[in-house]
Amino acid sequence: MVSLGEVLLRFDPENERIHTARSFRVFDGGAEYNVARGLAKVFRRKTAIVTALADNALGRLAEDFVLQAGVDASEIVWRSGGGTDTRNGIYFIERGFGLRAPASCFDRANTAVSQLKTGEINWHEIFNQYGTRWFHTGGVFVGLSETTPEVAKEAMQAARANGAIVSFDLNYRDSLWKNKGGREAANAVNRELLPLVDVVFGAMDFDARLSHFDAEKFRQAAEKMLSEFADLKIVCSTLREVHSASRHDLSAVCFRNGEIFKAKSYENIEVLDRVGSGDAFASGLIYGLLAEKDLQFAVECGAAHALLAMTTPGDNSTATLEEVENLMQGASGNVKR
Amino acid sequence: MVSLGEVLLRFDPENERIHTARSFRVFDGGAEYNVARGLAKVFRRKTAIVTALADNALGRLAEDFVLQAGVDASEIVWRSGGGTDTRNGIYFIERGFGLRAPASCFDRANTAVSQLKTGEINWHEIFNQYGTRWFHTGGVFVGLSETTPEVAKEAMQAARANGAIVSFDLNYRDSLWKNKGGREAANAVNRELLPLVDVVFGAMDFDARLSHFDAEKFRQAAEKMLSEFADLKIVCSTLREVHSASRHDLSAVCFRNGEIFKAKSYENIEVLDRVGSGDAFASGLIYGLLAEKDLQFAVECGAAHALLAMTTPGDNSTATLEEVENLMQGASGNVKR
Amino acid sequence: MVSLGEVLLRFDPENERIHTARSFRVFDGGAEYNVARGLAKVFRRKTAIVTALADNALGRLAEDFVLQAGVDASEIVWRSGGGTDTRNGIYFIERGFGLRAPASCFDRANTAVSQLKTGEINWHEIFNQYGTRWFHTGGVFVGLSETTPEVAKEAMQAARANGAIVSFDLNYRDSLWKNKGGREAANAVNRELLPLVDVVFGAMDFDARLSHFDAEKFRQAAEKMLSEFADLKIVCSTLREVHSASRHDLSAVCFRNGEIFKAKSYENIEVLDRVGSGDAFASGLIYGLLAEKDLQFAVECGAAHALLAMTTPGDNSTATLEEVENLMQGASGNVKR
Amino acid sequence: MVSLGEVLLRFDPENERIHTARSFRVFDGGAEYNVARGLAKVFRRKTAIVTALADNALGRLAEDFVLQAGVDASEIVWRSGGGTDTRNGIYFIERGFGLRAPASCFDRANTAVSQLKTGEINWHEIFNQYGTRWFHTGGVFVGLSETTPEVAKEAMQAARANGAIVSFDLNYRDSLWKNKGGREAANAVNRELLPLVDVVFGAMDFDARLSHFDAEKFRQAAEKMLSEFADLKIVCSTLREVHSASRHDLSAVCFRNGEIFKAKSYENIEVLDRVGSGDAFASGLIYGLLAEKDLQFAVECGAAHALLAMTTPGDNSTATLEEVENLMQGASGNVKR
Amino acid sequence: MVSLGEVLLRFDPENERIHTARSFRVFDGGAEYNVARGLAKVFRRKTAIVTALADNALGRLAEDFVLQAGVDASEIVWRSGGGTDTRNGIYFIERGFGLRAPASCFDRANTAVSQLKTGEINWHEIFNQYGTRWFHTGGVFVGLSETTPEVAKEAMQAARANGAIVSFDLNYRDSLWKNKGGREAANAVNRELLPLVDVVFGAMDFDARLSHFDAEKFRQAAEKMLSEFADLKIVCSTLREVHSASRHDLSAVCFRNGEIFKAKSYENIEVLDRVGSGDAFASGLIYGLLAEKDLQFAVECGAAHALLAMTTPGDNSTATLEEVENLMQGASGNVKR
Amino acid sequence: MVSLGEVLLRFDPENERIHTARSFRVFDGGAEYNVARGLAKVFRRKTAIVTALADNALGRLAEDFVLQAGVDASEIVWRSGGGTDTRNGIYFIERGFGLRAPASCFDRANTAVSQLKTGEINWHEIFNQYGTRWFHTGGVFVGLSETTPEVAKEAMQAARANGAIVSFDLNYRDSLWKNKGGREAANAVNRELLPLVDVVFGAMDFDARLSHFDAEKFRQAAEKMLSEFADLKIVCSTLREVHSASRHDLSAVCFRNGEIFKAKSYENIEVLDRVGSGDAFASGLIYGLLAEKDLQFAVECGAAHALLAMTTPGDNSTATLEEVENLMQGASGNVKR
Repeated sequence: MVSLGEVLLRFDPENERIHTARSFRVFDGGAEYNVARGLAKVFRRKTAIVTALADNALGRLAEDFVLQAGVDASEIVWRSGGGTDTRNGIYFIERGFGLRAPASCFDRANTAVSQLKTGEINWHEIFNQYGTRWFHTGGVFVGLSETTPEVAKEAMQAARANGAIVSFDLNYRDSLWKNKGGREAANAVNRELLPLVDVVFGAMDFDARLSHFDAEKFRQAAEKMLSEFADLKIVCSTLREVHSASRHDLSAVCFRNGEIFKAKSYENIEVLDRVGSGDAFASGLIYGLLAEKDLQFAVECGAAHALLAMTTPGDNSTATLEEVENLMQGASGNVKR
Repeated sequence: MVSLGEVLLRFDPENERIHTARSFRVFDGGAEYNVARGLAKVFRRKTAIVTALADNALGRLAEDFVLQAGVDASEIVWRSGGGTDTRNGIYFIERGFGLRAPASCFDRANTAVSQLKTGEINWHEIFNQYGTRWFHTGGVFVGLSETTPEVAKEAMQAARANGAIVSFDLNYRDSLWKNKGGREAANAVNRELLPLVDVVFGAMDFDARLSHFDAEKFRQAAEKMLSEFADLKIVCSTLREVHSASRHDLSAVCFRNGEIFKAKSYENIEVLDRVGSGDAFASGLIYGLLAEKDLQFAVECGAAHALLAMTTPGDNSTATLEEVENLMQGASGNVKR
Repeated sequence: MVSLGEVLLRFDPENERIHTARSFRVFDGGAEYNVARGLAKVFRRKTAIVTALADNALGRLAEDFVLQAGVDASEIVWRSGGGTDTRNGIYFIERGFGLRAPASCFDRANTAVSQLKTGEINWHEIFNQYGTRWFHTGGVFVGLSETTPEVAKEAMQAARANGAIVSFDLNYRDSLWKNKGGREAANAVNRELLPLVDVVFGAMDFDARLSHFDAEKFRQAAEKMLSEFADLKIVCSTLREVHSASRHDLSAVCFRNGEIFKAKSYENIEVLDRVGSGDAFASGLIYGLLAEKDLQFAVECGAAHALLAMTTPGDNSTATLEEVENLMQGASGNVKR
Repeated sequence: MVSLGEVLLRFDPENERIHTARSFRVFDGGAEYNVARGLAKVFRRKTAIVTALADNALGRLAEDFVLQAGVDASEIVWRSGGGTDTRNGIYFIERGFGLRAPASCFDRANTAVSQLKTGEINWHEIFNQYGTRWFHTGGVFVGLSETTPEVAKEAMQAARANGAIVSFDLNYRDSLWKNKGGREAANAVNRELLPLVDVVFGAMDFDARLSHFDAEKFRQAAEKMLSEFADLKIVCSTLREVHSASRHDLSAVCFRNGEIFKAKSYENIEVLDRVGSGDAFASGLIYGLLAEKDLQFAVECGAAHALLAMTTPGDNSTATLEEVENLMQGASGNVKR
Repeated sequence: MVSLGEVLLRFDPENERIHTARSFRVFDGGAEYNVARGLAKVFRRKTAIVTALADNALGRLAEDFVLQAGVDASEIVWRSGGGTDTRNGIYFIERGFGLRAPASCFDRANTAVSQLKTGEINWHEIFNQYGTRWFHTGGVFVGLSETTPEVAKEAMQAARANGAIVSFDLNYRDSLWKNKGGREAANAVNRELLPLVDVVFGAMDFDARLSHFDAEKFRQAAEKMLSEFADLKIVCSTLREVHSASRHDLSAVCFRNGEIFKAKSYENIEVLDRVGSGDAFASGLIYGLLAEKDLQFAVECGAAHALLAMTTPGDNSTATLEEVENLMQGASGNVKR
Repeated sequence: MVSLGEVLLRFDPENERIHTARSFRVFDGGAEYNVARGLAKVFRRKTAIVTALADNALGRLAEDFVLQAGVDASEIVWRSGGGTDTRNGIYFIERGFGLRAPASCFDRANTAVSQLKTGEINWHEIFNQYGTRWFHTGGVFVGLSETTPEVAKEAMQAARANGAIVSFDLNYRDSLWKNKGGREAANAVNRELLPLVDVVFGAMDFDARLSHFDAEKFRQAAEKMLSEFADLKIVCSTLREVHSASRHDLSAVCFRNGEIFKAKSYENIEVLDRVGSGDAFASGLIYGLLAEKDLQFAVECGAAHALLAMTTPGDNSTATLEEVENLMQGASGNVKR
């Protein structure tokens, strides 16, 4: 599986606030990368990340994380890391607690990956070499610059030509779009790309709050997307209710071939860090499909993985496949020794 | 705004217990100081603390905190810091967890601030120089020694003479009073001072448990205070229910001119550290009044600030005004990125 | 009070996972030792641990913990600590969070204590010297090797001969028994020893989930045990419901002389680290009996101590007797200052 | 005293390397700011920093540091902190150890301060308001962008017009200049500004290695500068020999009115973190002059402060004036208790 | 061996400074206690500390340290720990680095131990019960208050009556004496007690700098003391040269019966934390004498222990007897594995 | 390049001692693995480790480190991780300071890797697949058990058959051999394998102290080895002088074809952690040869890498190739920014 997107360094003040902290832990992150990371580290699939990094100490720190995750780092494009023109993306995030919401401060202007252009990456070689069965990218990557939507399109076309399934996450980041047209502009770009997509994460025109879930409305929203984009086969979404930063309800839902698959609902779940749980859902669901399980398994697997991703610090899950399966089977949280 | 009270160093074993810890984080604290700190750091008002410190490394550490908070440190009275006669106040506090209650160990005997005497501070210069609009002190400061009630009285008189509003927090500390007459003695001192007070935090003869809240009883208690102290205009109180050290219900209530203003109730709130939330309420409410909002805004602002103060370690809030306002408007705890 | 069992070093990745951690805190643990530790540190009783350690830096670290706990370390048998044949026991444990269950990885093969043999310890001297009134051991120790059940029997016989009460915890560890007969084999060993036991922790053939508690069924299970083992006087058990790793219900129950004593039920308790709470129950109950309180006090004391043990990191409680008593009397978790 | 320059956030992996770290401490830094900070925190002079920051969580973190340092933060120009166009400057630095040299990775493109333009700051008000006696800026600030040299010139002219002494540090940063003409271009900019300078830190055409120090050569270099820039009165420089990242020799030298003032030489000094020691020299020397000590005192004070700055982590010294004076008087490093 | 003195809690900012720290590690300390601790933990001798503590969380933390050290805590006198009148002693200490000297801030007014009075402690029972062979106290304890010299005298007399050797460390603390007569007053108190002493640490009228060591002058100083105090048998002293806080020369010297015993000199020794090395010398020397080694062994053992105590944080050594012996035999600092 | 050996988890108490620590950092280590790690992470060569691990959380932690190092983890043989019979190797190490020597406590009995047997690994596939040019193993691996020497021989034969150069490090570990014949037995095993070796690290019968270095004696020792083992081409050794745990002299020497190549000598080098510096020498030298530099470059590269490895915590270097080259060219330890 190959993913295209930014590898970010996440600076996290843990229990403190960004604006008063005196130290930060650092993690790896980046929406599209997180999906590849989950598949590699948790689900033990071979994955590679296609991205660009400035070749300085921060870029090498990002590589150190990619390697630790077991994601193939050999397709990273290294740019000269002088520091002024071409940067590495970083973000600062607080995970929140109780009534204090998570907060973030992104610093990703002029990053190497945002400067990627079509023609720079030999996609056919990549898809061939790895016998790639799945390609993933999403709305964060295509929001990075003017050129990234074209790079995404180029990759998707190559993926399809090489027989890989294409997935896309509609992820919208206001910090990327607010100065260039907002959600409407983002949607316009997404619409350019969705004709090349098989599986989409995020359902347009759909209220994803769990307590508002209505199977009929989801069916309508999904069918509308499928009718608009002929090659689209699966529409999925997490369902979530935020009681506080520390307590959520979570489920997920999926649509294919006129049929709805809904994961069981988890209520009043203790949340340590919600960031990245949507990406964890995506990797769990993709795992199910790559492992040729049925779609009910896939959506339950995605939901269970998303839940476990919220129980540890950082964007990414530290779960094992066995833990995901135990949770899918209703494990009680009891200790085994 | 000028506050009179002790700046304490708080030693906090975080997840450990005081009696088995091997390291302590240090924070700033002190009930009256916390109010000035909240107004400065969160609500961006100019504030100064009037206090005394022994001039040694611990005193300079306290000053380091005051500066970081953005509170004016130039009115600190520095005493010779030999260490034996004149100390700096410290306290050890555990924030508790679940059924394990918070616990504290105060070590504030013979502190520089407790040795303050009338005539030492040029109050008129202070109130003039800063164009001070508000003066705050409270029951902790006046419980420190025999001389501090007189210093408080002197300051209040000067404040009133200079047109500043005077607020007073009835805060009772058993560790200060248990050897010199207990709550009754404390009340006697408070009664000496309340004739000089405009806004009082804490309502006498009132059960402040949220589940026991009865508007009529609060009205009676408040009116009784107003009738006893002719210049008193506002009586406020937090309302709280402690389910466990980690879970509270919280609201607040205020009385003026025969009218009750009650903040909305927040239930089953996750609590990280409750210490200082009463002071946070005070600074939020004072902010509302200084910013010339109505009293309903002020009491909601105080409650929201108190809630946010309970979501981070230390006595004091790390919130921003924007976060307080978001919470007042019902923010869901969702991440923005 | 004298306990016989292994002193383990617990390596704990705190908020991280074992398989991705870069640092570990270390604690002391070991089921039977934990009981002696609780009695010494919390309940201020004189206790000693009988165990064996390899004499190397890890063994001395274990001794450092035993001393800190106030448990007498002079009955530790020191083996040559070359490292290859005779090891010290360690375990890695994650406390879990929310839907992520606690997890462990024991590494206790070939430990010095598992190599103890009958005749090596002068039990009569030990029981005499300390005027020992209570002896405790349990199912973990007797599961360590082929020789440890005989050592336990030898100790129990000496204890009884010296007038000490004998307690035994049925604790079953699958990691110890899965390669040598499982629970059935463990029960066979326990049955060899129960004729020498006065107080047993754990009730055979009894569903210990709090929501399934049925006084009649407990009576039957307890009476069956008492009828099988003539000298057995008291059967106790914690009652527990695991909602998530972070939220439990807890109570406890005890049977003596046809009478059931049930502690009050605590529901939806915030849990930081559940490991060791069963041992904390045992030490609380034994304290009650050693202090000649009635059995209702003892079972409430055990339950309260178990609850407090779950509010701090590590196997063991950091509570004080005063805190246990406050909780037994319904303390609200309010701060005292 | 007023300083003009960037306030940077310094991310420091402490004993680790940037490219493998998992956490970073954060400090404040920035060459010109460090001088103001030293004067405020160590030498207890009133100072203000003129700079610009993007108004986001990172900018507020920078402000938190400025406040803690006791530097007046009210002249900070706040820019909209959207994050893409206008950033806050950060840098990553390793302090090195033994044969491993310090290393850095600057990320200061498009910072708010680099976008400052003439006419934006009311310099006359600033110099008047504070009764400013000294103005400082330097080669780092003027290297930030095309506009900053003009801002520096504007400030210097206003300073001189208001009777303040002007100092300038020739600090050269290759990371700022390598793409726009290197050291030659930097010198050209400096030469534009030196006609407005009274005291210059750094001597052109001078070998600053302590072992190569030759009073005659220094005299020639200093006199050449004084002859080129008529208003220049004092030329100073540290003298240094780097044996390893952990061991330096250090001294300093100063020239005025044909006379050389050389501080005593400190040899084989243990170094924890050398970064910022040049700025510490500047603040110590300026203190001497502001306090109206003689120039020999000033250069010794600068050298002693530089030495103490190298004994703690971070750019800045944590020394007290008393410690600086003790070291100037030959203190032995003995403990006082 | 029994020691009489204060158990202090040491708050240590590690690499930071007290006046800017945000966390502190805590250690145990106290000059006379440190000697008992070294004998117990390093040299594996049975020791007890006689002291008094206020019974609050800080006092229990001090007890936790005493237990961990393996020192008998059962002779601690517990005072009511209200906090105002009777405190526990704490001190803040920085270990220094290079040219930055160690610094301290003691806060030990009104401590429980300073309030000890004659008649409160049953010395004969203590000396009998433990079969005590050695009693130690010193100049810090006797400087605590007006009553402590009398308590020391009472203890010394009882010790001698019970056949124990009495040692005394002349340790002078300016912070204790500066307001009550300084070094002269301290010496007057010491002279009252020296008639009861067998072994004295510290030689009056002797320059203890290693580079100034002159055997003849030491002989004169020692003989003068022996002639003044008839029962005094041994006079010892460390010899030290402080190049910087991080680099010392160290040796030690001893006089008995007209004969000088000098340990070998260690030069340019790397020092992490020098505090407590004098106490470590005392415990090493006492060990040598208790173990009936010759005086040359004892003084070498003391010096080697002092050196090892300077290689770890905290007042006290973490060495093992084997390490002390290896160093005495000239171990090269090579790793064994 | 392929290496055969154990991947150990290193538990490191940092500034503390193993026997009193309360937390440990964890690193990866293992002599033969370290060589592969250095080549991958520092010198950017493709390397793989052949080893066996028990499949439990500790084994997966070891894998996490291998991945982070950029070493291929796909040739790890995973054993069932029950925990009792088949363990993962761990060791505890203190890096020492000044006169306190490094100390260690190995716990590697019954590890999965020690149970490797001939016939289990398809060496020809491994050497073919990776086009392996170099194979490394050494005296630690062959000392693990009775079977490992045979596994090493099998691997060496396959390596030679596939045209790879074979290197072997004579590393002797007393903890492995003391119960089975000591150094003599180790040498006997080594002599069995040296006929298959091209490059040997460690010279028999040679005093490796730098101050004792005598070119003629080294020539004799090397020639004796070459004459005994016909295929041996290169004999290398570090040269070292240990002044204290914190200060070494270091150099290295190499012999080939009658010619001696000696690296320059580095004196009085500050050492943070010496463990693993011999392995770093090996990887630097192998890099030189793989990169087809001359032998003088190779031995200088090895020495420089060894020096850098001693400036950071952990067994392994965090250097970059650029840093190694800078040091070889005499870099002064100055900061670049």
